[in-house]
Amino acid sequence: MQRRPKRRRPSVEALQAGVESGNRALLAQAITLVESTHPTHRIQAATLLDALMPRTGGAVRLGITGVPGVGKSTFIDALGLHLIDQGLRVAVLAVDPTSGRTGGSILGDKTRMVRLSQADAAFIRPSPTSGTLGGVASRTREALLLCEAAGFDVVLVETVGVGQSETVVAQMTDTFLALMLSGAGDQLQGIKRGLMEMADLLVVNKADGDNVLPATQAANRYRQALHLLTPAYPEWRPRVRTCSGLDGTNVENVWGDVVTHREIMNKSGSLQSKRGMQNTAWMWTRVRESLELRFRSENAARLATIEDQVRRGEIAPTRAAVELLDG
Amino acid sequence: MQRRPKRRRPSVEALQAGVESGNRALLAQAITLVESTHPTHRIQAATLLDALMPRTGGAVRLGITGVPGVGKSTFIDALGLHLIDQGLRVAVLAVDPTSGRTGGSILGDKTRMVRLSQADAAFIRPSPTSGTLGGVASRTREALLLCEAAGFDVVLVETVGVGQSETVVAQMTDTFLALMLSGAGDQLQGIKRGLMEMADLLVVNKADGDNVLPATQAANRYRQALHLLTPAYPEWRPRVRTCSGLDGTNVENVWGDVVTHREIMNKSGSLQSKRGMQNTAWMWTRVRESLELRFRSENAARLATIEDQVRRGEIAPTRAAVELLDG
Repeated sequence: MQRRPKRRRPSVEALQAGVESGNRALLAQAITLVESTHPTHRIQAATLLDALMPRTGGAVRLGITGVPGVGKSTFIDALGLHLIDQGLRVAVLAVDPTSGRTGGSILGDKTRMVRLSQADAAFIRPSPTSGTLGGVASRTREALLLCEAAGFDVVLVETVGVGQSETVVAQMTDTFLALMLSGAGDQLQGIKRGLMEMADLLVVNKADGDNVLPATQAANRYRQALHLLTPAYPEWRPRVRTCSGLDGTNVENVWGDVVTHREIMNKSGSLQSKRGMQNTAWMWTRVRESLELRFRSENAARLATIEDQVRRGEIAPTRAAVELLDG
Repeated sequence: MQRRPKRRRPSVEALQAGVESGNRALLAQAITLVESTHPTHRIQAATLLDALMPRTGGAVRLGITGVPGVGKSTFIDALGLHLIDQGLRVAVLAVDPTSGRTGGSILGDKTRMVRLSQADAAFIRPSPTSGTLGGVASRTREALLLCEAAGFDVVLVETVGVGQSETVVAQMTDTFLALMLSGAGDQLQGIKRGLMEMADLLVVNKADGDNVLPATQAANRYRQALHLLTPAYPEWRPRVRTCSGLDGTNVENVWGDVVTHREIMNKSGSLQSKRGMQNTAWMWTRVRESLELRFRSENAARLATIEDQVRRGEIAPTRAAVELLDG
């Protein structure tokens, strides 16, 4: 009796057809392919992405950041349901460079988006669970393109905003939304000039019950702070809103801001130039990664010796680099 | 009559001897050499650094960050004079990725360090004025080594903390000090988790006159905030102090903290492992830069075409990268 291999991966053609027809199981398998670091899979992934390229670019790409405790999952759950009610299909991706270490955040996020995870028009994909931030970001960008090719109207890319992850999410989305909290812990919320300069929308979440007034006050403080900054695009001054992911208050207005931001950026041509710059930056990220990998594999033996010498201070790092490159 | 070239650069040997004897004019010329991007100069710089390597590593490397208005120059002026009074020689370097654009900050800084700039035991060098943050950082690291070889006991590396410049300064120093202000503008001071996690010392400056109480209160808030964070090294919990660069209050205690931090890190072995990691990271920065430069020059013609296609969305960035690398 002939043995049949279990769980054979569909061909690139089958994946392409599956994604194009909006099949969620095949979309998930296509994402698994682009997440693989195996060289053969990398080539197949490039082929698949190339074939699907004409179908990409159509979604609203919305980045969402917020520290743990800000109510990110509840907000995304509410926003996602609002969009589905409007007849839109919604994909949720995540960039979480810590998920490989902690292990817990993905399951937590998925189970917390209670309603959205059960909706037919929604697709939720956790963060790739290993690799550098650059690697995770790169694979999430490709997953985003696959979701677009599968016909999703909105792709939400969320991140916890640890370290530089909010920067990489801003670099793959059209609109960047920062969820904030009112309250004394402002310093720990990642409220930094960089984030303020990056965000197109600042949303003070948990504006419900006794927290409505503090949230409104916090929103006013953020508005004042934003007035001191030069906007990244002259045609858009970042907006500040309060909202409640829990009871849904103002969620539709937040979405209205996203749509308005997009319309203005599209009309001025900034959306197109932003996406163009994002694309070339991404290409360069890929090229740099490959150059380094190739260099490491070609110089593995010498590298171990020279790295030790550099670590012990026996040879200047600059000299070591020159020797490695000339060798 | 034979023409004599004006301002001939001294030979690598002359620069080496000059740096070793602590000659400030030759040190300045050696720094100019390592700042050059000319390929011949790069090789000479590597030779010079290699020859001086045994004389490096002896200084206290202190990184100082703070937003404009925090009183950084006044603080460094006061700290530098305090060190000189103790018989130490002090070099001040800067990482300012914006200086090439704005043009003004260097002169400003130098003239504001009124007393220090006139002291024989001090050497002040502005930031390299052009290039990417990575390039500026790389050349500042080399200038730091040259200052060590020239016998400076303390090298202060300052940065305005715009974008990622505080990260690169932290990656080239032993101790990282963040100057803060009291007051309502906390959000705009770059008070972010990243900075809090990076700083070994938080110093609330301008604790003088009517501002002593607000500064003390701000220091307490920072202490509370720090208690919520896990220290980067178990043996050192970041310290918070108030100080006045203007009237000199507490400047000697800040220096005491720097010395204590260094002793503890040295005793535990963390200082050595930190420097070892900094060295290998630096080598890799250099290798990556060179690999990319080489790649760009070898593929200049194709690159222009493919970048245009990527920008217009005609080809997936991933596919473009594969084609470039295989071509």
